[in-house]
Amino acid sequence: MAKRYSSETYVQGILAGNRVMLSRAITLAESKLASDQELAQQVIDEVLPYAGNSMRIGITGVPGVGKSTFIEAFGNYLIKEQGKKLAVLAIDPTSQRTGGSILGDKTRMESLSVNPQAFIRPSPAGKSLGGVTKSTRETIILCEAAGFDAIIVETVGVGQSETAVHAMVDFFLLLMLAGAGDELQGIKRGIMEMADAIAITKADEQNVQKAKAARAEYQNALHLYPLAASGWMPRVSICSALQNSGLETIWQAIADYLELTHNNGFFEKKRRDQNLQWMYEAIRQGLEDNFYTHQQVKEQLPNVAEQVKEGKKSAFAAAAELLRLV
Amino acid sequence: MAKRYSSETYVQGILAGNRVMLSRAITLAESKLASDQELAQQVIDEVLPYAGNSMRIGITGVPGVGKSTFIEAFGNYLIKEQGKKLAVLAIDPTSQRTGGSILGDKTRMESLSVNPQAFIRPSPAGKSLGGVTKSTRETIILCEAAGFDAIIVETVGVGQSETAVHAMVDFFLLLMLAGAGDELQGIKRGIMEMADAIAITKADEQNVQKAKAARAEYQNALHLYPLAASGWMPRVSICSALQNSGLETIWQAIADYLELTHNNGFFEKKRRDQNLQWMYEAIRQGLEDNFYTHQQVKEQLPNVAEQVKEGKKSAFAAAAELLRLV
Repeated sequence: MAKRYSSETYVQGILAGNRVMLSRAITLAESKLASDQELAQQVIDEVLPYAGNSMRIGITGVPGVGKSTFIEAFGNYLIKEQGKKLAVLAIDPTSQRTGGSILGDKTRMESLSVNPQAFIRPSPAGKSLGGVTKSTRETIILCEAAGFDAIIVETVGVGQSETAVHAMVDFFLLLMLAGAGDELQGIKRGIMEMADAIAITKADEQNVQKAKAARAEYQNALHLYPLAASGWMPRVSICSALQNSGLETIWQAIADYLELTHNNGFFEKKRRDQNLQWMYEAIRQGLEDNFYTHQQVKEQLPNVAEQVKEGKKSAFAAAAELLRLV
Repeated sequence: MAKRYSSETYVQGILAGNRVMLSRAITLAESKLASDQELAQQVIDEVLPYAGNSMRIGITGVPGVGKSTFIEAFGNYLIKEQGKKLAVLAIDPTSQRTGGSILGDKTRMESLSVNPQAFIRPSPAGKSLGGVTKSTRETIILCEAAGFDAIIVETVGVGQSETAVHAMVDFFLLLMLAGAGDELQGIKRGIMEMADAIAITKADEQNVQKAKAARAEYQNALHLYPLAASGWMPRVSICSALQNSGLETIWQAIADYLELTHNNGFFEKKRRDQNLQWMYEAIRQGLEDNFYTHQQVKEQLPNVAEQVKEGKKSAFAAAAELLRLV
């Protein structure tokens, strides 16, 4: 158990950019202990006025697309060429299943992890998606208060977590492989339509032609989609982390997106909507936590659920029956 | 207020295919009165063993795509050529806003509405989406128990209701106009990826070439999507309700889909998953109804929400504060 300080100590440390204090506050936010949660909440509320001044970028793609390599290359670009202070966070509720293919192993981002302008934080493994996204959202706020002005939230493109990430970032970047066939890439249906940009990775050596063809195809497909509420037309580009190529084009897409949405008011509106959405989700989560941990509900749910699945009891009668227990 | 009978009377009437009893049971299910709800629940539970033997088809498309005309033509095809008994239901939580562009006006389906093999039921206007989808799900069960073996659930392709419909049907058909430009069509992002089939409507006279070009384009775009869990590759076809053309092709897609998914077990699995999903949604709805109608929550929510939107209070602190009130 890490040492606990007063909320004042955490707040001052974070605002001074103290990485150790930042890390400890995040650990507090991730803790399941009620006393830790309370303290974390106090810290978050106090640093809140200093948060928000960042660009929040969601990055997803299936294992094998080269996410870590891309984030390392792009992260270094953001720091060196754009003067950003970068925090890289990860959402991976499935890490136990997939064997920790996400940030768990920090050494996958060697140069970034030792860069004083970068802060890398893997998500705690084995928690529920709701739990992980809650602490990731709080971590974004803590990092922003500590002066990080570019936040990358990484997730594996295979499950529900993309929707959760999409709901907490300003810009959503989807990494794709050329010529792998989408069914092989395993991208969940619906994710492509959330993307503000698609980057075809590993566009180097004999892959370049294939990557260019994929770019044309995806660009074409995206044009068939309805225009997003942001007024932004998603862009497709190719890149190679190996050759450090294509990173500027991706940055330009992000910069153009930010300019457009700052000017048309969408950026501010989206942030406000997201804040409210987080609140409603936290309420729902709280209500469901109370309900599903109730002793009688826990006892009767499996049997009732089985009857519903088999069509022996209607879903509504079952819900009413369980709700009466609380 | 319609006359109320014993649950036994409703059940026997429904199982005998009595349309008046069916209508009254649906009205009961739509009612907000607790006593009506209780009676409806009793009826639904008793007819449940007789429900489920139908194909449930979701149909969506923006206003102007010709949904009612299509459903009338396709419905008549299903009845006359495929020997189906057809129920057409509608989900339209926005009907007050859009001026009742959905089934509200039964006369839009003149020939179908007088066909003894068809049963048309608009959704009650002005209820919440949750409320509408709950009663639509119950209506599906009641109609099936009354012997309707093809259920069409219609919705307007502009909002959240598509996701709700998608979660309650076996097959999801998206109607599109050729050459209108997707941004004009206003289809919400993500809906195209839910479609098991896309039908380009109004492919008649000078529109035929345009429709064929659109078909090729969409078919191409759909191939870029990952394969659905059903193993089904979505089909695109053209049709004209005016000329009664293309209806058989659409029917064939549905029939092929049903054959495939019955054989590979996906159909049964999806139905079971949907049952369970309905239960969890009904629980969530029940929990939230209790919470948001709580007097103190109602009083304090607006102010707290405003602080969250403005970034003055964190979403989590706000949620915790409100949850403590109950």
